[in-house]
Amino acid sequence: MTTPYKRLDKSQAAVLMVDHQAGLLSLVRDIDPDKFKNNVLALGDLAKYFELPTILTTSFEDGPNGPLVPELKERFPDAPYIARPGQINAWDNEDFVKAIEATGKKQLIIAGVVTEVCVAFPALSAIEAGYDVFVVTDASGTFNEITRHSAWDRMSSAGAQLMTWFGLACELHRDWRNDVEGLGTLFSNHIPDYRNLITSYNTLTSGK
Amino acid sequence: MTTPYKRLDKSQAAVLMVDHQAGLLSLVRDIDPDKFKNNVLALGDLAKYFELPTILTTSFEDGPNGPLVPELKERFPDAPYIARPGQINAWDNEDFVKAIEATGKKQLIIAGVVTEVCVAFPALSAIEAGYDVFVVTDASGTFNEITRHSAWDRMSSAGAQLMTWFGLACELHRDWRNDVEGLGTLFSNHIPDYRNLITSYNTLTSGK
Amino acid sequence: MTTPYKRLDKSQAAVLMVDHQAGLLSLVRDIDPDKFKNNVLALGDLAKYFELPTILTTSFEDGPNGPLVPELKERFPDAPYIARPGQINAWDNEDFVKAIEATGKKQLIIAGVVTEVCVAFPALSAIEAGYDVFVVTDASGTFNEITRHSAWDRMSSAGAQLMTWFGLACELHRDWRNDVEGLGTLFSNHIPDYRNLITSYNTLTSGK
Amino acid sequence: MTTPYKRLDKSQAAVLMVDHQAGLLSLVRDIDPDKFKNNVLALGDLAKYFELPTILTTSFEDGPNGPLVPELKERFPDAPYIARPGQINAWDNEDFVKAIEATGKKQLIIAGVVTEVCVAFPALSAIEAGYDVFVVTDASGTFNEITRHSAWDRMSSAGAQLMTWFGLACELHRDWRNDVEGLGTLFSNHIPDYRNLITSYNTLTSGK
Amino acid sequence: MTTPYKRLDKSQAAVLMVDHQAGLLSLVRDIDPDKFKNNVLALGDLAKYFELPTILTTSFEDGPNGPLVPELKERFPDAPYIARPGQINAWDNEDFVKAIEATGKKQLIIAGVVTEVCVAFPALSAIEAGYDVFVVTDASGTFNEITRHSAWDRMSSAGAQLMTWFGLACELHRDWRNDVEGLGTLFSNHIPDYRNLITSYNTLTSGK
Amino acid sequence: MTTPYKRLDKSQAAVLMVDHQAGLLSLVRDIDPDKFKNNVLALGDLAKYFELPTILTTSFEDGPNGPLVPELKERFPDAPYIARPGQINAWDNEDFVKAIEATGKKQLIIAGVVTEVCVAFPALSAIEAGYDVFVVTDASGTFNEITRHSAWDRMSSAGAQLMTWFGLACELHRDWRNDVEGLGTLFSNHIPDYRNLITSYNTLTSGK
Amino acid sequence: MTTPYKRLDKSQAAVLMVDHQAGLLSLVRDIDPDKFKNNVLALGDLAKYFELPTILTTSFEDGPNGPLVPELKERFPDAPYIARPGQINAWDNEDFVKAIEATGKKQLIIAGVVTEVCVAFPALSAIEAGYDVFVVTDASGTFNEITRHSAWDRMSSAGAQLMTWFGLACELHRDWRNDVEGLGTLFSNHIPDYRNLITSYNTLTSGK
Amino acid sequence: MTTPYKRLDKSQAAVLMVDHQAGLLSLVRDIDPDKFKNNVLALGDLAKYFELPTILTTSFEDGPNGPLVPELKERFPDAPYIARPGQINAWDNEDFVKAIEATGKKQLIIAGVVTEVCVAFPALSAIEAGYDVFVVTDASGTFNEITRHSAWDRMSSAGAQLMTWFGLACELHRDWRNDVEGLGTLFSNHIPDYRNLITSYNTLTSGK
Repeated sequence: MTTPYKRLDKSQAAVLMVDHQAGLLSLVRDIDPDKFKNNVLALGDLAKYFELPTILTTSFEDGPNGPLVPELKERFPDAPYIARPGQINAWDNEDFVKAIEATGKKQLIIAGVVTEVCVAFPALSAIEAGYDVFVVTDASGTFNEITRHSAWDRMSSAGAQLMTWFGLACELHRDWRNDVEGLGTLFSNHIPDYRNLITSYNTLTSGK
Repeated sequence: MTTPYKRLDKSQAAVLMVDHQAGLLSLVRDIDPDKFKNNVLALGDLAKYFELPTILTTSFEDGPNGPLVPELKERFPDAPYIARPGQINAWDNEDFVKAIEATGKKQLIIAGVVTEVCVAFPALSAIEAGYDVFVVTDASGTFNEITRHSAWDRMSSAGAQLMTWFGLACELHRDWRNDVEGLGTLFSNHIPDYRNLITSYNTLTSGK
Repeated sequence: MTTPYKRLDKSQAAVLMVDHQAGLLSLVRDIDPDKFKNNVLALGDLAKYFELPTILTTSFEDGPNGPLVPELKERFPDAPYIARPGQINAWDNEDFVKAIEATGKKQLIIAGVVTEVCVAFPALSAIEAGYDVFVVTDASGTFNEITRHSAWDRMSSAGAQLMTWFGLACELHRDWRNDVEGLGTLFSNHIPDYRNLITSYNTLTSGK
Repeated sequence: MTTPYKRLDKSQAAVLMVDHQAGLLSLVRDIDPDKFKNNVLALGDLAKYFELPTILTTSFEDGPNGPLVPELKERFPDAPYIARPGQINAWDNEDFVKAIEATGKKQLIIAGVVTEVCVAFPALSAIEAGYDVFVVTDASGTFNEITRHSAWDRMSSAGAQLMTWFGLACELHRDWRNDVEGLGTLFSNHIPDYRNLITSYNTLTSGK
Repeated sequence: MTTPYKRLDKSQAAVLMVDHQAGLLSLVRDIDPDKFKNNVLALGDLAKYFELPTILTTSFEDGPNGPLVPELKERFPDAPYIARPGQINAWDNEDFVKAIEATGKKQLIIAGVVTEVCVAFPALSAIEAGYDVFVVTDASGTFNEITRHSAWDRMSSAGAQLMTWFGLACELHRDWRNDVEGLGTLFSNHIPDYRNLITSYNTLTSGK
Repeated sequence: MTTPYKRLDKSQAAVLMVDHQAGLLSLVRDIDPDKFKNNVLALGDLAKYFELPTILTTSFEDGPNGPLVPELKERFPDAPYIARPGQINAWDNEDFVKAIEATGKKQLIIAGVVTEVCVAFPALSAIEAGYDVFVVTDASGTFNEITRHSAWDRMSSAGAQLMTWFGLACELHRDWRNDVEGLGTLFSNHIPDYRNLITSYNTLTSGK
Repeated sequence: MTTPYKRLDKSQAAVLMVDHQAGLLSLVRDIDPDKFKNNVLALGDLAKYFELPTILTTSFEDGPNGPLVPELKERFPDAPYIARPGQINAWDNEDFVKAIEATGKKQLIIAGVVTEVCVAFPALSAIEAGYDVFVVTDASGTFNEITRHSAWDRMSSAGAQLMTWFGLACELHRDWRNDVEGLGTLFSNHIPDYRNLITSYNTLTSGK
Repeated sequence: MTTPYKRLDKSQAAVLMVDHQAGLLSLVRDIDPDKFKNNVLALGDLAKYFELPTILTTSFEDGPNGPLVPELKERFPDAPYIARPGQINAWDNEDFVKAIEATGKKQLIIAGVVTEVCVAFPALSAIEAGYDVFVVTDASGTFNEITRHSAWDRMSSAGAQLMTWFGLACELHRDWRNDVEGLGTLFSNHIPDYRNLITSYNTLTSGK
């Protein structure tokens, strides 16, 4: 009766980044800004590293919500980019759904701002439409711990899997031997403690 | 086997505000008073904005529990108002249930003080009676995080959906184009960060 | 598929207080001692007030675990008292189970120290034996938030309902009109904020 | 529809300790290092005390992840030790699974670093393979509370039982009379508050 | 240049309890209500135990601030009781200062609600008037940690000594041999952990 | 050798509000936005209520820092308003210092964003220039608790007094009898718990 | 006018360990028990390592306070051991002061339980008597953060220096070259993160 | 008698970065690693931007403490770099002091790992030697809040000024007009919220 092990497969997965906009980010107060920025960019780098089809979308980007953060635009110059004219649930936007269908993937990795709206709404719609949904909890932000917990509970009850960018990377990669260098670089760039381990290791094994 | 996506529809929803009384509010210690007051009034404004039928009820308002907070009375001068003579679970009061039935709505949005009693009891009864229940976690308050978590767990296990006022507003509104001005005003009045975004935006785009 | 509303009924409920012993209490660090003592005694007073059959049990009380706290003994001089010779799960003690069966009740309210053992083990056994189980989360204590969350998750997944003493009292009482004075006294004795409301109310309505 | 009471039985259980490596431990920030070290060693001592078959495994131990902590190696000199050449999910390593099958046990107790990867992946695989899984939440560490909560939610939804080392020990032991001295020593060595109770008790009952 | 050791002497000290009123107590949110009530009553019991002259005062007790909590009135039926007609700083009330002068004491122990006003103002005035001031930090409450820290900083910078009721009791008592029973009872009544130690000790040394 | 009691006197005090700008407010993360907005407006209302000369200043208001929040502009339409062309320490701006000197006051009440810069710099300069400085800690915001503590320590060491808006109001008012209605309204508008006390009191004493 | 740099010198320092008794330790709730035990034993090991004269004292050790923890007794079999018959401030006990004078040291390192009494009282007395006092904040425990902060403030205002065991060890050692092995062992035994660094380093530089 | 306003002057200041080494960084647990890394690099960038003479030093960098983090080395290829052979207090190293003297500066900005040793020791020595010391609290890390608070208290009592990198930058820069672009870039690179303000501003004022 419980959720079976839905395991991520890099040949089956696509990434949806929803409303990481310069204005909306000032609403995020459940994760420290330095850490949140790092998590979002780590997810971006991960998507590129595993060559997962990635879809960007924004809400009202010409108004107070502000533009998509430039770092994401730069990472995905050729990705489908849906500037929604008004739909709050991205799934209500036909172009967005078509872009997802065009990837042919059935495992959707979703992150966004704010969690209980920009993430939860398309996550619930995607589950209803038959997709497996993986929420990137640490690359999604919201007002406070009450709004976060409520969003997590609603999505988890509906069958979404709560994951974080590091877990995603590990589940997608499967085996270090597929590319030690690549995965190590991803971790080194986004986990200071891991970078320190590598620095010390390299110093000791190869001299300065 | 999981909860399907029960999506709020403004033509199907009614709001129940249970026991937001001046005395009982002194029991609320899991949310800061400034924030809690804001959340409750935001829910009130939201109910008015979407013209959702709203029902007010109080418990023993002539005793130490104190009167309904005046700001809610003022917002809903014509709403059904059930001053319960003794029933702790509002659903045990016939007039309350009749008022709900009179709305003809099947989606019930519930908030109140304290969460594990005034919210949880009618929420569980409403589910049993076949309604879809949406708990407004941030407009419901209680003694501490243990009482809160216990209440959330009991309601979530029974199929209630945990939401917050901002998520409710977004799910009810569906599309900014339905009324940009109106939703923007609601957010500006109850989210200081959003108001600041709008202030800066307006200053830059239209001059002072 | 979700847990239906199992509503407490004072004619159907019994209370189990497991291992609230003077030594073991020094292990409780997830709730402040002043508050925890108050919660445990509130549960004791509640059981007496509603005349619920109550069963006391201890583990190894002649060793370092220490004696049952005297305040509980004094409240229940005639209650079944099972000093278990060694069984960690109280349900493994035949006398304990017989004492429960002798009450003829099917709704079991359980509290104890520590939550993941003295509460969780008999709670899981009772569910397996067909009882409805209501865990009193705030009258049960443990080492820290990790042990607490793990215990709550295990019990909730098995169908136990997480409640607190205040919620229990309200659900058992149903209607203030059954006895305003009695319930008010219970709250006044164990909720300082409520006592203050009553003090102010009485002063204003009846003179000093 | 809920998880039934899967009760640990010392004749049925095996312990898997996954990636408690000197380098990886610097990533653990959701539990204080003094406490985490104590919890991991308590689990090790518990496994030895109950003579549970125990399997050790590491990931890339010659690189920055570092060697298994010496205290675990010393406790289990003859245990199967699988230094995985690259598989991130230990269950993807044939030798690891064979070592488990060789124990003939169907109840798997799992702890590791980090929770959402080294614990969650084999836990989910083990459930899929038909095992009963017991996660030792306090002997498993990760980056922060978001990664921890996400990992717990994913495992709990899949049917894993969240436990802690103290609960494990109590459920495995069943009855103090099986060996008062042994269990008391385990607790005294790893719970300072319990040791203090015993010190005071011994002083009073047997003189200094 | 630093504050010398101003040591409390029970023959030199008086206690001022300022504005512990039923209404004002709902403003206290930096200490949990169960704990705060205990601390205030412990201070009351301590004052009686050491027979320190004690002065009670209230602000506007016939209005929303509410009456002095009855437990304090009962403890000090004959103490000077100054219901201030309007002065916010109790030191601005002549009767209050005269009552202090009448005690002939030069060490003033002050507690009250709220810390930054009802405690800080008379504390600063008393220092200016040449008294040694001891603030009872845990029997004084306020809105939050910012208001508390600010109040402590202002008073400490002016030379007030920050103490708590337990420290006061110990410094006043000097030597357990002056009265073991009396001090033990005070601690047992207000420190659950200490009561448990005594319960276990008594059980072991004198039988049940 | 300690700071003497520098007591606020409404005939001697002026208020400086420094850089409460729509953009800069998004940097404030040591106080929740709902509470911070309330504190800043409470300070504004307090300044008006006591008719204290008030000076507004902004930093680079035509750039990303954004305009002064409109609520402050509206409250002080005729106040000196210094839009600094570049000076970070407002005291380096001659017009600002002249505006202060023009008030003829020697007690300066300062609040601003962010605490360690916009508040601390002019506070330290003002002390150097011979003024008595009162920092409004809860109407000043900054990045986090480390930046806040550092700022408080630097200012307190230099002789600034740390206060909060409520303490300021009480010290300035001295005696309720000067104007019960006015002070009560100020508190009712900015302290929900106090408003509830008044609501209950009024209901009981004058009927609905 | 500020406290000058009083630098610890191992030829000038003595250590006072006050009331680390098995019963009293159950009162310590401002530091987690695993960490606190580690800190106290680290201080003990440090005293032995630097061969500092060490004095042990207890309060009422035959009553509920319980015996000195055995680990300290074992570490200092020949140290002066003053079981005080009743004095709460150890400095009031002549034997204690004589034992200190007998060491001929003028720098006193003090730790104990509870901080605001057993540490603060002798610390203040020692300062008054002309000693330099170094409080070991992390080997001293108390009820909660309010009691701790109050104790720290009182001692710091009187000129005591707040330090922790790690800082003490570093200041006493001065130069790693005095004994790399010895200091490294002390750190490895009491700082899990440091032990991990050493484990990884040794593995890489000397092979397993 | 209080600390006067010692104002930073970019022509008078030098920066000391002490022991930011890859191994030692794993000991830092009072600041999140993402944030701490950012703070340290922000301090580095600030030193370069203001062209402050900067001195790097390490402790035992060939052992477990590990090498200086490469990002700092790269930023200061020509800075004095003192790899101390053993002295724990960097001030005990003659080369270090000479390097400082060679700068001719009297205002020393100090950051390092860990706060109570590598920062506090040279800070106290520098004050003793007549320098003005500015501690960068948020670019200095340590084990926990107790060690941090103790270190801050000791340094502040000795006259050190507690600052953070943002405050330093603002006090050094004095006036935005000195270089809007440069300071803006520094902030944009190290304060995500500030970068978002700039992104929105630029988008609105110059088009995408």
